[in-house]
Amino acid sequence: ADPAATAAAEERNSQLTKPPGALGRLEDMAIWYAGWRGVARPALERPQVIVFAGNHGVAARGVSAFPAEVTVQMVANFRAGGAAINQLARAAGATLSVHELDLDRPTADFTQGPAMTEAEVVAALSVGWHAVDPSSDLLVVGEMGIGNTTPAAAIACALFGGQPGEWTGRGTGVDDRGLSIKTQVVAEGLAANPDRDPLEVLRCLGGREIAAMAGAIAAAHAARIPVILDGFICTAAAATLAMAAEGALDHCIAGHASAEASHRALLSKLGKQPMLELGLRLGEGSGAALAINVLKAAIACHSGMATFAEAGVSGA
Amino acid sequence: ADPAATAAAEERNSQLTKPPGALGRLEDMAIWYAGWRGVARPALERPQVIVFAGNHGVAARGVSAFPAEVTVQMVANFRAGGAAINQLARAAGATLSVHELDLDRPTADFTQGPAMTEAEVVAALSVGWHAVDPSSDLLVVGEMGIGNTTPAAAIACALFGGQPGEWTGRGTGVDDRGLSIKTQVVAEGLAANPDRDPLEVLRCLGGREIAAMAGAIAAAHAARIPVILDGFICTAAAATLAMAAEGALDHCIAGHASAEASHRALLSKLGKQPMLELGLRLGEGSGAALAINVLKAAIACHSGMATFAEAGVSGA
Repeated sequence: ADPAATAAAEERNSQLTKPPGALGRLEDMAIWYAGWRGVARPALERPQVIVFAGNHGVAARGVSAFPAEVTVQMVANFRAGGAAINQLARAAGATLSVHELDLDRPTADFTQGPAMTEAEVVAALSVGWHAVDPSSDLLVVGEMGIGNTTPAAAIACALFGGQPGEWTGRGTGVDDRGLSIKTQVVAEGLAANPDRDPLEVLRCLGGREIAAMAGAIAAAHAARIPVILDGFICTAAAATLAMAAEGALDHCIAGHASAEASHRALLSKLGKQPMLELGLRLGEGSGAALAINVLKAAIACHSGMATFAEAGVSGA
Repeated sequence: ADPAATAAAEERNSQLTKPPGALGRLEDMAIWYAGWRGVARPALERPQVIVFAGNHGVAARGVSAFPAEVTVQMVANFRAGGAAINQLARAAGATLSVHELDLDRPTADFTQGPAMTEAEVVAALSVGWHAVDPSSDLLVVGEMGIGNTTPAAAIACALFGGQPGEWTGRGTGVDDRGLSIKTQVVAEGLAANPDRDPLEVLRCLGGREIAAMAGAIAAAHAARIPVILDGFICTAAAATLAMAAEGALDHCIAGHASAEASHRALLSKLGKQPMLELGLRLGEGSGAALAINVLKAAIACHSGMATFAEAGVSGA
């Protein structure tokens, strides 16, 4: 972030016609955004939502309530405009693009070895990196990939420790038996892939859409495009960057805390406080897309309000 | 609410292309809205924000960090488009109207007797009632009135009991001495006005803008226009209706929990769970206006998404 723009935004904020601090976290959001955009009085006009889709070898182990064919079916639904993310992106005035990554070639079952080869993870990171429109002024990345809360749990456990069961939740809605299988699969994956280097964790325990999200978040950092993080899977992708390089997520805020309980724990590890908490657990970037209009409102107040001097209002 | 529309909306919600419940509270909001609008697949297109302004006899007691002249100055700021609520209403696509109620004639100091005569409270209720555009499809009411967290605290304490100090907070930012004075003023007001009939509480301990908010919320109920409640003062106004007639706030959801700690307690008494919690404590309808786009997004998902059958997506 640009320290001069941050300081100028803080100064402006202190002069706006409201009691100091009365817009709460909206004030922090606007100042953070101003810093990343390098202007004291920014506008947010070109938000971009990108959904990455991938399939997972571990889906064959019965870790999801839905069959793996739903990934490609939902991609068609995204293209036809029928999914939640289509409505949410439109409501936020955001563009939506969808990238499917080798859907007919799932990653390898990570209980048997690495999910991806080096070439595969690099290709996926690259898809994400190049998917970011450099002229956008906000990025949301979402995902679709039946079974992908399992790699997300494995990544979180590999990066932050604890027991597999602490990071494993019901995802789209597995029953007790499914949850037990899922926890076992995470444990087997961690045992089969012992390297804890963050980018090796991404390769061995992640998935193509997860790597693509990481690539896009990294590209946004380079282009000073602020990011709103979505749910557990997006945050797990982001966490690999955070553990690989300090400050790698300084351009990110957490859009929401999902109903997947381990998401909150993961956000806490990353020092991120969620903007919203409405019990979403859908993925697709839905929670982050919902948060776009809150950030827009914060910026509209910051950049549009009159100062005490301009309005002739007495101070405290 | 219309039970047939509610049932039809619930049925539609169960068929949308997402895991059951995966949109969390957005699903509940959309179904609630559908019920009040009487259609299974509603649209939210004409939200209205109304700000009522009033002055308070108790302001002369030093209960606010700001001088009373700020009420009329902020009304001018609303009309010039420079306040937070102007930016938030525009960001939500809402109309904004401002009604000032006898600003040069503050209510009586309620530590000495009733704040308003019967004629005065009826006039204020009537301003609120008639301010609601019957063609709108959502209502937010906000307020401006230096000192008005003091009557709000008095109303909450009169309706729900407890000690004055439990309901009294720092408002726009009074210091410890101001908070002590404010708590004392609330206690004196409660002693001077012993009638606990809810509409008498409104008359004796409220204020013109508070009564106008109550009138507008009641008019919206009659017209089946859903309402998003704002912060502590708006919720105190609404609480007088809730205690006067069961179900009087069934058409209302809580837009946010403000930083004024007693707001959360008041919402809890009313059985309302806030949509947002971002530390706002500004009034003007700001928190509720911020929540409009969240409700719009909920309705956009509900009414715009494809069903499993339409999209050809396999179920769980």
